[in-house]
Amino acid sequence: MVDVWQTAMDHAVGAARRAGQVCCSGALIRCVDQVVREALQDDRKVMTKSSSVDLVTQTDQKVEQLIIQSVKEKFPTHRFIGEESVAAGESCVLTDAPTWIIDPIDGTTNFVHAFPFVAVSIGFSVNKQVEFGVVFSCLEDKMFTARRGKGAFCDGEPLQVSDQEDIKQSIIATEFGSSRDPEAVDRIFSSLRNVLCIPVHGVRGAGTAAINMCLVASGCVEAYYEIGIHVWDIAAGSLIVSEAGGVLMDVDGKDGGPLDLMSRRIVAANSRTIAERIVREIDAFGPPRDDEPLRR
Amino acid sequence: MVDVWQTAMDHAVGAARRAGQVCCSGALIRCVDQVVREALQDDRKVMTKSSSVDLVTQTDQKVEQLIIQSVKEKFPTHRFIGEESVAAGESCVLTDAPTWIIDPIDGTTNFVHAFPFVAVSIGFSVNKQVEFGVVFSCLEDKMFTARRGKGAFCDGEPLQVSDQEDIKQSIIATEFGSSRDPEAVDRIFSSLRNVLCIPVHGVRGAGTAAINMCLVASGCVEAYYEIGIHVWDIAAGSLIVSEAGGVLMDVDGKDGGPLDLMSRRIVAANSRTIAERIVREIDAFGPPRDDEPLRR
Repeated sequence: MVDVWQTAMDHAVGAARRAGQVCCSGALIRCVDQVVREALQDDRKVMTKSSSVDLVTQTDQKVEQLIIQSVKEKFPTHRFIGEESVAAGESCVLTDAPTWIIDPIDGTTNFVHAFPFVAVSIGFSVNKQVEFGVVFSCLEDKMFTARRGKGAFCDGEPLQVSDQEDIKQSIIATEFGSSRDPEAVDRIFSSLRNVLCIPVHGVRGAGTAAINMCLVASGCVEAYYEIGIHVWDIAAGSLIVSEAGGVLMDVDGKDGGPLDLMSRRIVAANSRTIAERIVREIDAFGPPRDDEPLRR
Repeated sequence: MVDVWQTAMDHAVGAARRAGQVCCSGALIRCVDQVVREALQDDRKVMTKSSSVDLVTQTDQKVEQLIIQSVKEKFPTHRFIGEESVAAGESCVLTDAPTWIIDPIDGTTNFVHAFPFVAVSIGFSVNKQVEFGVVFSCLEDKMFTARRGKGAFCDGEPLQVSDQEDIKQSIIATEFGSSRDPEAVDRIFSSLRNVLCIPVHGVRGAGTAAINMCLVASGCVEAYYEIGIHVWDIAAGSLIVSEAGGVLMDVDGKDGGPLDLMSRRIVAANSRTIAERIVREIDAFGPPRDDEPLRR
């Protein structure tokens, strides 16, 4: 079976790079108005998904189909969880079957505005365990990869999380997310204020979960946390973090439980010390799980 | 006099590029621990400035001296306002004399953590008006330049702000800043929450004022605002924004007054509509002015 997953991973790397080229060719180095103007000229409609904040272009759907088709030809029995497919009504349940978990454009808001972080994220799970993760940061042209038990890499160079254990010397990555529901915003701000005033060295956010997790794996930030993300945002990145020596947690419970890919909550950190410290500051809430029936 | 400033600007571009090479060579593509470890090995001490959040390394001071020395040789009568010189006790008063306003490493926290946005910022003012601005984003290897009345450019390509006038379709850049004073943090969070829940499309921050302003000039974000920045953070960027077609304001008063480089408050936007909308949401406060006597 080992060879099968290596072949699958090689396929994922190629698919992510091709998808990234589609995403990033030209459009992203131009300003937002030009992008939107060209999108309209191309009859690519910008549609509203869960809220006006979460933009989806037809590019997003096109890229996901491109990846899924290429995988189906090679691995006809494998399953898929893709952001756009789920949005279109497909099931979002993680089974033991080999499953490709795909976010065709992580950082859609960045994409539409030409903000310089956009990623293609492909995770692959078997028996509900991520076997490999591929994140292609297409504007930076960086390919992040990890295979379970075999380390994490950026363009072939091994990644290692930061060894900073003092949270006051740390940078923490997080996002405001796309929800503007007042209760969720209250909790997000309350948590963020708690974390900032530990105090930490700084708070940053690339605007994409996948790249935030690659920043943890690269040692550029000590931790990333967010509530509201989806399985396709974190499946690949979670393995990249853990294979770079990092720690993954849910934010549930006093010290954080083990990561549940479908729970829509994550803390990814360089160490248990930093992860647990962050968990203590988070005003946790539970958005509907990704695998909750009829949630859409 | 026109030729003098063009010569000065050419000098600034060269100095910024050389400074950026010193800043970025090697160090920034490594993880924070390695950077800090090497800094310690090199006897480069990390010192505390206004708070533990605002790191200064000797690199910062070295780069500023490198720029100032090279300018003094060529323009012996010009004055300087440099972040590190002011920290060391030099005056920070903007006169009518030709003055170089220098931030050797904007994004010091990013620099120490190898977070990928770090800039060298050089503004040049005469009669208290910025004549040219140069921002070198050294890890991205992008040279942003503007000369008063002659447009703004990135690597020679003209820049144009976004023409998005609907704030709900906009990305706004801001920072939490380095102060952890509870009252300042309260106001920063209150303003940010107001802005987020307009609602806007997203909130981002590169971790450097200079690059945030270049993102406005490039059309990647519609606006940037911050309270607590210093003249060396914004002198160059302010001209790059206005020459790219943008608008600059203080946040004082109901609709914002004209920008005062020394007031430590700025809104830089693609349009007056967006700028005024943001000003209305900001819970303004006045940190000590940069030119306040004996403020240090």
